Amino acid sequence: MFNSIPNRKVYEQVIEQIQQNILSGDLKKGDKLPSERELCELMNISRASVREAIRVLEAMGVIESIHGEGNFICTNPEKSLLQPLSMIFKLNNGKSQDIFELRKILEIESSKLAANRATNIDCRELLNIVNQMEEETLNENRNEILVKLDKEFHNKLASMSKNYLIECLFTTSSMLFEKFIEDARCEIIKKDSADKFLLCQHKEICDAIINKNEELSIKAMKDHMDYVEKIIIDIND
Amino acid sequence: MFNSIPNRKVYEQVIEQIQQNILSGDLKKGDKLPSERELCELMNISRASVREAIRVLEAMGVIESIHGEGNFICTNPEKSLLQPLSMIFKLNNGKSQDIFELRKILEIESSKLAANRATNIDCRELLNIVNQMEEETLNENRNEILVKLDKEFHNKLASMSKNYLIECLFTTSSMLFEKFIEDARCEIIKKDSADKFLLCQHKEICDAIINKNEELSIKAMKDHMDYVEKIIIDIND
Repeated sequence: MFNSIPNRKVYEQVIEQIQQNILSGDLKKGDKLPSERELCELMNISRASVREAIRVLEAMGVIESIHGEGNFICTNPEKSLLQPLSMIFKLNNGKSQDIFELRKILEIESSKLAANRATNIDCRELLNIVNQMEEETLNENRNEILVKLDKEFHNKLASMSKNYLIECLFTTSSMLFEKFIEDARCEIIKKDSADKFLLCQHKEICDAIINKNEELSIKAMKDHMDYVEKIIIDIND
Repeated sequence: MFNSIPNRKVYEQVIEQIQQNILSGDLKKGDKLPSERELCELMNISRASVREAIRVLEAMGVIESIHGEGNFICTNPEKSLLQPLSMIFKLNNGKSQDIFELRKILEIESSKLAANRATNIDCRELLNIVNQMEEETLNENRNEILVKLDKEFHNKLASMSKNYLIECLFTTSSMLFEKFIEDARCEIIKKDSADKFLLCQHKEICDAIINKNEELSIKAMKDHMDYVEKIIIDIND
Protein backbone atom coordinates (compact mmCIF):
# COMPACT_ATOMS: atom_id res chain seq x y z
CA MET A 1 0.00 0.00 0.00
CA PHE A 2 2.93 2.30 0.64
CA ASN A 3 5.94 2.80 -1.61
CA SER A 4 9.33 3.69 -0.25
CA ILE A 5 10.19 7.33 -0.81
CA PRO A 6 13.49 7.61 -2.68
CA ASN A 7 16.14 9.12 -0.46
CA ARG A 8 17.67 11.55 -2.91
CA LYS A 9 19.97 14.26 -1.73
CA VAL A 10 19.27 17.86 -2.66
CA TYR A 11 22.49 18.30 -4.66
CA GLU A 12 21.57 15.20 -6.70
CA GLN A 13 18.25 16.79 -7.62
CA VAL A 14 20.07 19.95 -8.73
CA ILE A 15 22.36 17.86 -10.95
CA GLU A 16 19.34 16.09 -12.38
CA GLN A 17 17.64 19.35 -13.31
CA ILE A 18 20.73 20.68 -15.05
CA GLN A 19 21.21 17.33 -16.80
CA GLN A 20 17.59 17.34 -17.98
CA ASN A 21 18.05 20.80 -19.44
CA ILE A 22 21.13 19.61 -21.30
CA LEU A 23 19.42 16.48 -22.65
CA SER A 24 16.37 18.44 -23.77
CA GLY A 25 18.61 20.88 -25.61
CA ASP A 26 17.58 23.87 -23.46
CA LEU A 27 21.15 24.25 -22.23
CA LYS A 28 23.82 24.30 -24.94
CA LYS A 29 27.61 24.45 -25.06
CA GLY A 30 28.76 27.94 -24.08
CA ASP A 31 25.55 28.85 -22.25
CA LYS A 32 25.95 30.64 -18.93
CA LEU A 33 24.11 29.20 -15.96
CA PRO A 34 22.17 31.51 -13.62
CA SER A 35 24.41 32.67 -10.75
CA GLU A 36 24.65 30.40 -7.70
CA ARG A 37 22.51 32.86 -5.74
CA GLU A 38 19.85 32.89 -8.45
CA LEU A 39 19.84 29.06 -8.57
CA CYS A 40 19.32 28.97 -4.78
CA GLU A 41 16.29 31.19 -5.16
CA LEU A 42 14.89 29.44 -8.25
CA MET A 43 15.08 26.01 -6.59
CA ASN A 44 14.48 27.18 -3.05
CA ILE A 45 17.54 25.44 -1.62
CA SER A 46 20.73 26.26 0.25
CA ARG A 47 23.87 27.70 -1.30
CA ALA A 48 25.86 24.62 -0.18
CA SER A 49 23.65 22.27 -2.22
CA VAL A 50 24.02 24.40 -5.33
CA ARG A 51 27.76 24.57 -4.86
CA GLU A 52 28.06 20.78 -4.43
CA ALA A 53 26.09 20.21 -7.64
CA ILE A 54 28.26 22.69 -9.56
CA ARG A 55 31.40 20.99 -8.24
CA VAL A 56 30.17 17.61 -9.44
CA LEU A 57 29.30 18.87 -12.92
CA GLU A 58 32.63 20.69 -13.06
CA ALA A 59 34.44 17.46 -12.19
CA MET A 60 32.37 15.65 -14.84
CA GLY A 61 33.65 18.13 -17.41
CA VAL A 62 30.30 19.69 -18.39
CA ILE A 63 30.61 22.96 -16.45
CA GLU A 64 33.50 25.36 -16.48
CA SER A 65 33.72 27.86 -13.62
CA ILE A 66 35.37 31.07 -14.70
CA HIS A 67 36.36 33.18 -11.72
CA GLY A 68 34.43 36.44 -11.61
CA GLU A 69 32.40 35.52 -14.69
CA GLY A 70 30.24 32.55 -13.72
CA ASN A 71 29.55 28.94 -14.66
CA PHE A 72 29.40 27.91 -18.31
CA ILE A 73 28.28 24.73 -20.06
CA CYS A 74 31.23 23.07 -21.79
CA THR A 75 32.47 19.62 -22.82
CA ASN A 76 35.71 18.05 -21.70
CA PRO A 77 35.80 14.34 -22.58
CA GLU A 78 39.05 13.86 -20.68
CA LYS A 79 37.37 14.82 -17.41
CA SER A 80 34.03 13.25 -18.33
CA LEU A 81 35.34 9.86 -19.35
CA LEU A 82 39.01 9.27 -18.68
CA GLN A 83 38.95 9.95 -14.95
CA PRO A 84 36.01 7.71 -14.04
CA LEU A 85 36.92 5.05 -16.60
CA SER A 86 40.50 4.73 -15.38
CA MET A 87 39.27 4.31 -11.81
CA ILE A 88 36.60 1.70 -12.51
CA PHE A 89 38.98 -0.07 -14.89
CA LYS A 90 41.59 -0.37 -12.14
CA LEU A 91 39.03 -1.27 -9.44
CA ASN A 92 37.76 -4.14 -11.60
CA ASN A 93 41.26 -5.44 -12.31
CA GLY A 94 41.06 -4.61 -16.01
CA LYS A 95 43.96 -5.99 -18.05
CA SER A 96 46.10 -3.97 -20.43
CA GLN A 97 45.03 -6.42 -23.14
CA ASP A 98 41.46 -5.16 -22.63
CA ILE A 99 42.54 -1.66 -23.59
CA PHE A 100 44.37 -2.87 -26.66
CA GLU A 101 41.37 -4.92 -27.84
CA LEU A 102 39.12 -1.90 -27.50
CA ARG A 103 41.58 0.40 -29.22
CA LYS A 104 41.96 -2.03 -32.08
CA ILE A 105 38.26 -2.12 -32.95
CA LEU A 106 37.99 1.67 -32.64
CA GLU A 107 40.99 2.16 -34.95
CA ILE A 108 39.68 -0.30 -37.54
CA GLU A 109 36.20 1.25 -37.51
CA SER A 110 37.67 4.76 -37.77
CA SER A 111 39.71 3.66 -40.73
CA LYS A 112 36.64 2.16 -42.40
CA LEU A 113 34.44 5.21 -41.75
CA ALA A 114 37.22 7.59 -42.80
CA ALA A 115 37.44 5.86 -46.19
CA ASN A 116 33.77 6.73 -46.69
CA ARG A 117 33.54 10.13 -45.07
CA ALA A 118 36.87 11.94 -45.27
CA THR A 119 36.82 15.30 -47.03
CA ASN A 120 39.60 16.42 -49.36
CA ILE A 121 40.95 18.68 -46.63
CA ASP A 122 41.04 15.73 -44.19
CA CYS A 123 42.97 13.66 -46.70
CA ARG A 124 45.47 16.44 -47.29
CA GLU A 125 46.06 16.82 -43.56
CA LEU A 126 46.54 13.09 -43.08
CA LEU A 127 48.96 12.94 -46.01
CA ASN A 128 50.83 15.88 -44.55
CA ILE A 129 51.38 13.95 -41.30
CA VAL A 130 52.64 10.92 -43.24
CA ASN A 131 55.03 13.12 -45.23
CA GLN A 132 56.43 14.56 -42.02
CA MET A 133 56.88 11.02 -40.70
CA GLU A 134 58.87 10.18 -43.82
CA GLU A 135 61.15 13.18 -43.37
CA GLU A 136 61.70 12.43 -39.70
CA THR A 137 62.63 8.81 -40.37
CA LEU A 138 65.93 10.19 -41.74
CA ASN A 139 66.54 12.31 -38.64
CA GLU A 140 68.90 10.91 -35.99
CA ASN A 141 66.97 12.20 -32.98
CA ARG A 142 63.68 11.16 -34.44
CA ASN A 143 62.04 9.14 -31.68
CA GLU A 144 60.28 11.89 -29.80
CA ILE A 145 58.97 13.58 -32.95
CA LEU A 146 57.85 10.28 -34.46
CA VAL A 147 55.91 9.46 -31.29
CA LYS A 148 54.17 12.83 -31.58
CA LEU A 149 53.40 12.36 -35.29
CA ASP A 150 52.10 8.83 -34.69
CA LYS A 151 49.68 10.20 -32.11
CA GLU A 152 48.60 12.96 -34.51
CA PHE A 153 48.01 10.45 -37.30
CA HIS A 154 45.72 8.25 -35.21
CA ASN A 155 43.84 11.16 -33.64
CA LYS A 156 43.27 12.69 -37.06
CA LEU A 157 41.97 9.36 -38.34
CA ALA A 158 39.51 9.07 -35.44
CA SER A 159 38.17 12.54 -36.17
CA MET A 160 37.76 11.55 -39.84
CA SER A 161 35.24 8.91 -38.75
CA LYS A 162 32.80 11.83 -38.23
CA ASN A 163 31.34 9.80 -35.38
CA TYR A 164 31.54 11.79 -32.16
CA LEU A 165 31.24 8.75 -29.88
CA ILE A 166 33.94 6.77 -31.65
CA GLU A 167 36.26 9.78 -31.69
CA CYS A 168 35.62 10.44 -28.02
CA LEU A 169 36.15 6.83 -26.92
CA PHE A 170 39.20 6.58 -29.15
CA THR A 171 40.78 9.56 -27.39
CA THR A 172 39.85 8.10 -24.01
CA SER A 173 41.18 4.64 -24.82
CA SER A 174 44.41 6.16 -26.15
CA MET A 175 44.88 8.01 -22.89
CA LEU A 176 44.06 4.87 -20.88
CA PHE A 177 46.59 3.04 -23.03
CA GLU A 178 49.27 5.60 -22.19
CA LYS A 179 48.34 5.50 -18.52
CA PHE A 180 48.47 1.74 -18.17
CA ILE A 181 50.88 0.66 -20.90
CA GLU A 182 53.73 3.01 -20.17
CA ASP A 183 55.84 4.24 -23.04
CA ALA A 184 54.46 1.59 -25.40
CA ARG A 185 54.48 3.98 -28.35
CA CYS A 186 58.02 5.03 -27.63
CA GLU A 187 59.21 1.45 -27.23
CA ILE A 188 57.58 0.45 -30.49
CA ILE A 189 59.26 3.21 -32.45
CA LYS A 190 62.63 2.61 -30.78
CA LYS A 191 62.79 -0.93 -32.13
CA ASP A 192 65.45 -1.43 -34.81
CA SER A 193 64.08 -1.13 -38.32
CA ALA A 194 60.53 -0.79 -37.00
CA ASP A 195 60.25 2.84 -38.04
CA LYS A 196 60.59 2.17 -41.77
CA PHE A 197 58.05 -0.61 -41.61
CA LEU A 198 55.67 1.54 -39.55
CA LEU A 199 56.03 4.35 -42.06
CA CYS A 200 55.00 1.92 -44.83
CA GLN A 201 51.95 0.85 -42.85
CA HIS A 202 50.86 4.43 -42.19
CA LYS A 203 51.30 5.19 -45.89
CA GLU A 204 49.14 2.22 -46.82
CA ILE A 205 46.34 3.31 -44.49
CA CYS A 206 46.53 6.87 -45.78
CA ASP A 207 46.49 5.76 -49.46
CA ALA A 208 43.49 3.50 -48.92
CA ILE A 209 41.53 6.33 -47.31
CA ILE A 210 42.47 8.86 -49.99
CA ASN A 211 41.29 6.34 -52.61
CA LYS A 212 38.07 5.83 -50.60
CA ASN A 213 38.79 2.10 -50.57
CA GLU A 214 36.95 0.84 -47.50
CA GLU A 215 38.09 -2.77 -47.76
CA LEU A 216 41.74 -1.88 -48.16
CA SER A 217 41.64 0.69 -45.36
CA ILE A 218 40.25 -1.96 -42.97
CA LYS A 219 42.92 -4.44 -44.04
CA ALA A 220 45.77 -1.93 -43.76
CA MET A 221 44.72 -0.89 -40.26
CA LYS A 222 44.26 -4.52 -39.17
CA ASP A 223 47.79 -5.33 -40.35
CA HIS A 224 49.14 -2.30 -38.52
CA MET A 225 47.36 -3.24 -35.28
CA ASP A 226 48.52 -6.87 -35.53
CA TYR A 227 52.10 -5.68 -35.93
CA VAL A 228 51.85 -3.27 -32.98
CA GLU A 229 50.25 -5.99 -30.85
CA LYS A 230 53.14 -8.35 -31.56
CA ILE A 231 55.68 -5.72 -30.47
CA ILE A 232 53.73 -4.98 -27.27
CA ILE A 233 53.67 -8.68 -26.39
CA ASP A 234 57.44 -8.85 -27.07
CA ILE A 235 58.07 -5.86 -24.80
CA ASN A 236 56.02 -7.31 -21.97
CA ASP A 237 57.67 -10.72 -22.18
CA MET B 1 61.84 32.97 -15.26
CA PHE B 2 58.59 32.47 -13.46
CA ASN B 3 55.98 29.79 -14.14
CA SER B 4 52.32 30.32 -13.46
CA ILE B 5 51.17 28.53 -10.35
CA PRO B 6 48.32 26.17 -11.17
CA ASN B 7 45.14 27.39 -9.55
CA ARG B 8 43.81 24.10 -8.26
CA LYS B 9 40.96 24.05 -5.79
CA VAL B 10 41.32 22.18 -2.53
CA TYR B 11 38.53 19.70 -3.29
CA GLU B 12 40.22 18.86 -6.60
CA GLN B 13 43.40 17.99 -4.73
CA VAL B 14 41.42 15.72 -2.41
CA ILE B 15 39.91 13.93 -5.43
CA GLU B 16 43.36 13.58 -6.92
CA GLN B 17 44.74 11.94 -3.78
CA ILE B 18 41.90 9.43 -3.62
CA GLN B 19 42.25 8.76 -7.34
CA GLN B 20 45.98 8.18 -6.97
CA ASN B 21 45.32 5.67 -4.21
CA ILE B 22 42.85 3.83 -6.44
CA LEU B 23 45.22 3.77 -9.43
CA SER B 24 48.13 2.56 -7.31
CA GLY B 25 45.96 -0.24 -5.97
CA ASP B 26 46.12 1.00 -2.34
CA LEU B 27 42.34 1.54 -2.33
CA LYS B 28 40.28 -1.42 -3.54
CA LYS B 29 36.59 -2.09 -4.15
CA GLY B 30 34.80 -2.43 -0.82
CA ASP B 31 37.46 -0.52 1.16
CA LYS B 32 36.18 1.98 3.68
CA LEU B 33 37.60 5.51 3.52
CA PRO B 34 38.71 7.26 6.70
CA SER B 35 35.84 9.29 8.16
CA GLU B 36 35.33 12.82 6.85
CA ARG B 37 36.69 14.19 10.12
CA GLU B 38 39.80 12.02 9.88
CA LEU B 39 40.33 13.08 6.24
CA CYS B 40 40.16 16.76 7.31
CA GLU B 41 42.88 16.14 9.89
CA LEU B 42 45.04 13.97 7.63
CA MET B 43 45.00 16.56 4.84
CA ASN B 44 44.79 19.63 7.04
CA ILE B 45 41.76 21.06 5.23
CA SER B 46 38.19 22.13 5.89
CA ARG B 47 35.22 19.79 6.21
CA ALA B 48 33.50 21.50 3.26
CA SER B 49 36.37 20.63 0.90
CA VAL B 50 36.32 16.98 1.98
CA ARG B 51 32.57 16.83 1.55
CA GLU B 52 32.72 18.38 -1.94
CA ALA B 53 35.33 15.82 -3.01
CA ILE B 54 33.25 12.93 -1.62
CA ARG B 55 30.17 14.24 -3.46
CA VAL B 56 32.07 14.34 -6.74
CA LEU B 57 33.40 10.80 -6.35
CA GLU B 58 29.94 9.63 -5.33
CA ALA B 59 28.47 11.19 -8.47
CA MET B 60 31.26 9.55 -10.50
CA GLY B 61 30.14 6.18 -9.13
CA VAL B 62 33.36 5.26 -7.32
CA ILE B 63 32.26 6.03 -3.76
CA GLU B 64 29.11 4.86 -2.04
CA SER B 65 28.02 6.76 1.07
CA ILE B 66 26.16 4.49 3.48
CA HIS B 67 24.34 6.54 6.10
CA GLY B 68 25.74 5.91 9.55
CA GLU B 69 28.44 3.58 8.23
CA GLY B 70 30.75 5.70 6.11
CA ASN B 71 32.11 6.02 2.60
CA PHE B 72 33.10 2.93 0.64
CA ILE B 73 34.96 2.43 -2.63
CA CYS B 74 32.66 0.89 -5.23
CA THR B 75 32.11 0.80 -9.00
CA ASN B 76 28.99 1.88 -10.79
CA PRO B 77 29.57 2.17 -14.56
CA GLU B 78 26.12 3.66 -15.11
CA LYS B 79 26.99 6.68 -12.97
CA SER B 80 30.62 6.77 -14.07
CA LEU B 81 30.01 6.66 -17.78
CA LEU B 82 26.40 6.96 -18.85
CA GLN B 83 25.67 10.28 -17.16
CA PRO B 84 28.67 12.22 -18.47
CA LEU B 85 28.64 10.50 -21.86
CA SER B 86 24.96 11.24 -22.50
CA MET B 87 25.55 14.91 -21.66
CA ILE B 88 28.65 15.41 -23.80
CA PHE B 89 27.03 13.38 -26.60
CA LYS B 90 24.03 15.72 -26.61
CA LEU B 91 26.12 18.88 -26.21
CA ASN B 92 28.19 17.90 -29.27
CA ASN B 93 25.09 17.15 -31.37
CA GLY B 94 25.84 13.43 -31.57
CA LYS B 95 23.62 11.53 -34.00
CA SER B 96 21.70 8.35 -33.17
CA GLN B 97 23.60 6.70 -36.02
CA ASP B 98 26.80 7.31 -34.01
CA ILE B 99 25.44 5.19 -31.18
CA PHE B 100 24.41 2.39 -33.52
CA GLU B 101 27.82 2.33 -35.20
CA LEU B 102 29.54 2.05 -31.83
CA ARG B 103 27.14 -0.63 -30.61
CA LYS B 104 27.66 -2.62 -33.77
CA ILE B 105 31.44 -2.90 -33.39
CA LEU B 106 31.12 -3.71 -29.68
CA GLU B 107 28.56 -6.47 -30.43
CA ILE B 108 30.66 -7.98 -33.20
CA GLU B 109 33.83 -7.92 -31.09
CA SER B 110 31.96 -9.45 -28.12
CA SER B 111 30.69 -12.20 -30.36
CA LYS B 112 34.20 -12.89 -31.65
CA LEU B 113 35.80 -12.89 -28.20
CA ALA B 114 32.97 -15.00 -26.76
CA ALA B 115 33.62 -17.70 -29.37
CA ASN B 116 37.17 -17.91 -28.00
CA ARG B 117 36.61 -17.37 -24.30
CA ALA B 118 33.16 -18.59 -23.28
CA THR B 119 33.07 -21.28 -20.58
CA ASN B 120 30.65 -24.20 -20.71
CA ILE B 121 28.50 -22.51 -18.07
CA ASP B 122 28.38 -19.32 -20.19
CA CYS B 123 27.27 -21.34 -23.22
CA ARG B 124 24.55 -23.09 -21.23
CA GLU B 125 23.23 -19.76 -19.95
CA LEU B 126 23.20 -18.24 -23.44
CA LEU B 127 21.41 -21.29 -24.84
CA ASN B 128 18.90 -21.08 -22.02
CA ILE B 129 18.01 -17.50 -23.04
CA VAL B 130 17.60 -18.57 -26.67
CA ASN B 131 15.33 -21.46 -25.62
CA GLN B 132 13.17 -19.07 -23.63
CA MET B 133 12.97 -16.81 -26.68
CA GLU B 134 11.76 -19.77 -28.72
CA GLU B 135 9.02 -20.58 -26.22
CA GLU B 136 7.92 -16.96 -26.00
CA THR B 137 7.65 -16.61 -29.78
CA LEU B 138 4.50 -18.79 -29.49
CA ASN B 139 3.05 -16.59 -26.75
CA GLU B 140 0.44 -14.00 -27.81
CA ASN B 141 1.54 -11.30 -25.38
CA ARG B 142 5.15 -11.86 -26.12
CA ASN B 143 6.52 -8.42 -26.96
CA GLU B 144 7.52 -7.26 -23.51
CA ILE B 145 9.12 -10.56 -22.54
CA LEU B 146 10.96 -10.83 -25.84
CA VAL B 147 12.36 -7.33 -25.37
CA LYS B 148 13.64 -8.39 -21.94
CA LEU B 149 15.16 -11.63 -23.28
CA ASP B 150 16.79 -9.81 -26.19
CA LYS B 151 18.45 -7.46 -23.72
CA GLU B 152 19.60 -10.41 -21.58
CA PHE B 153 21.05 -12.19 -24.60
CA HIS B 154 23.17 -9.23 -25.67
CA ASN B 155 24.29 -8.37 -22.13
CA LYS B 156 25.29 -11.99 -21.52
CA LEU B 157 27.25 -11.99 -24.77
CA ALA B 158 29.12 -8.83 -23.78
CA SER B 159 30.09 -10.40 -20.45
CA MET B 160 31.33 -13.50 -22.32
CA SER B 161 33.93 -11.31 -24.03
CA LYS B 162 35.79 -11.35 -20.68
CA ASN B 163 36.95 -7.86 -21.53
CA TYR B 164 35.87 -5.46 -18.81
CA LEU B 165 36.16 -2.34 -20.97
CA ILE B 166 34.14 -3.78 -23.83
CA GLU B 167 31.48 -5.05 -21.46
CA CYS B 168 31.32 -1.72 -19.69
CA LEU B 169 31.09 0.34 -22.88
CA PHE B 170 28.58 -2.10 -24.33
CA THR B 171 26.29 -1.56 -21.34
CA THR B 172 26.77 2.18 -21.60
CA SER B 173 26.10 2.30 -25.33
CA SER B 174 22.99 0.12 -24.87
CA MET B 175 21.67 2.57 -22.32
CA LEU B 176 22.53 5.52 -24.56
CA PHE B 177 20.74 3.72 -27.37
CA GLU B 178 17.61 3.35 -25.24
CA LYS B 179 17.84 6.95 -24.14
CA PHE B 180 18.17 8.42 -27.61
CA ILE B 181 16.50 5.86 -29.86
CA GLU B 182 13.26 5.43 -28.00
CA ASP B 183 11.59 2.06 -28.01
CA ALA B 184 13.76 0.85 -30.89
CA ARG B 185 13.98 -2.67 -29.47
CA CYS B 186 10.24 -2.82 -28.94
CA GLU B 187 9.50 -1.53 -32.44
CA ILE B 188 11.86 -4.06 -33.97
CA ILE B 189 10.20 -6.99 -32.22
CA LYS B 190 6.70 -5.72 -32.97
CA LYS B 191 7.29 -5.91 -36.71
CA ASP B 192 5.31 -8.65 -38.44
CA SER B 193 7.24 -11.86 -38.87
CA ALA B 194 10.39 -10.22 -37.49
CA ASP B 195 10.34 -12.27 -34.31
CA LYS B 196 10.81 -15.64 -36.03
CA PHE B 197 13.64 -14.28 -38.13
CA LEU B 198 15.25 -12.66 -35.08
CA LEU B 199 14.98 -15.96 -33.20
CA CYS B 200 16.86 -17.66 -36.04
CA GLN B 201 19.58 -15.05 -35.93
CA HIS B 202 20.02 -15.36 -32.16
CA LYS B 203 20.19 -19.15 -32.57
CA GLU B 204 22.89 -18.81 -35.21
CA ILE B 205 25.01 -16.56 -33.00
CA CYS B 206 24.56 -18.89 -30.04
CA ASP B 207 25.46 -22.01 -32.08
CA ALA B 208 28.58 -20.39 -33.51
CA ILE B 209 29.79 -19.46 -30.02
CA ILE B 210 29.05 -22.89 -28.56
CA ASN B 211 31.03 -24.42 -31.42
CA LYS B 212 33.83 -21.93 -30.73
CA ASN B 213 33.66 -20.86 -34.38
CA GLU B 214 35.05 -17.33 -34.38
CA GLU B 215 34.50 -16.65 -38.05
CA LEU B 216 30.89 -17.80 -38.02
CA SER B 217 30.09 -15.91 -34.81
CA ILE B 218 31.38 -12.67 -36.37
CA LYS B 219 29.33 -13.29 -39.51
CA ALA B 220 26.15 -14.19 -37.61
CA MET B 221 26.38 -11.05 -35.47
CA LYS B 222 27.13 -8.87 -38.51
CA ASP B 223 24.04 -10.23 -40.27
CA HIS B 224 21.95 -9.61 -37.15
CA MET B 225 23.20 -6.03 -36.81
CA ASP B 226 22.63 -5.31 -40.52
CA TYR B 227 19.05 -6.55 -40.20
CA VAL B 228 18.41 -4.48 -37.07
CA GLU B 229 19.96 -1.42 -38.73
CA LYS B 230 17.61 -1.76 -41.70
CA ILE B 231 14.57 -1.88 -39.40
CA ILE B 232 15.75 1.17 -37.45
CA ILE B 233 16.18 3.14 -40.68
CA ASP B 234 12.66 2.03 -41.75
CA ILE B 235 11.20 3.19 -38.42
CA ASN B 236 12.87 6.57 -38.60
CA ASP B 237 11.80 7.20 -42.18
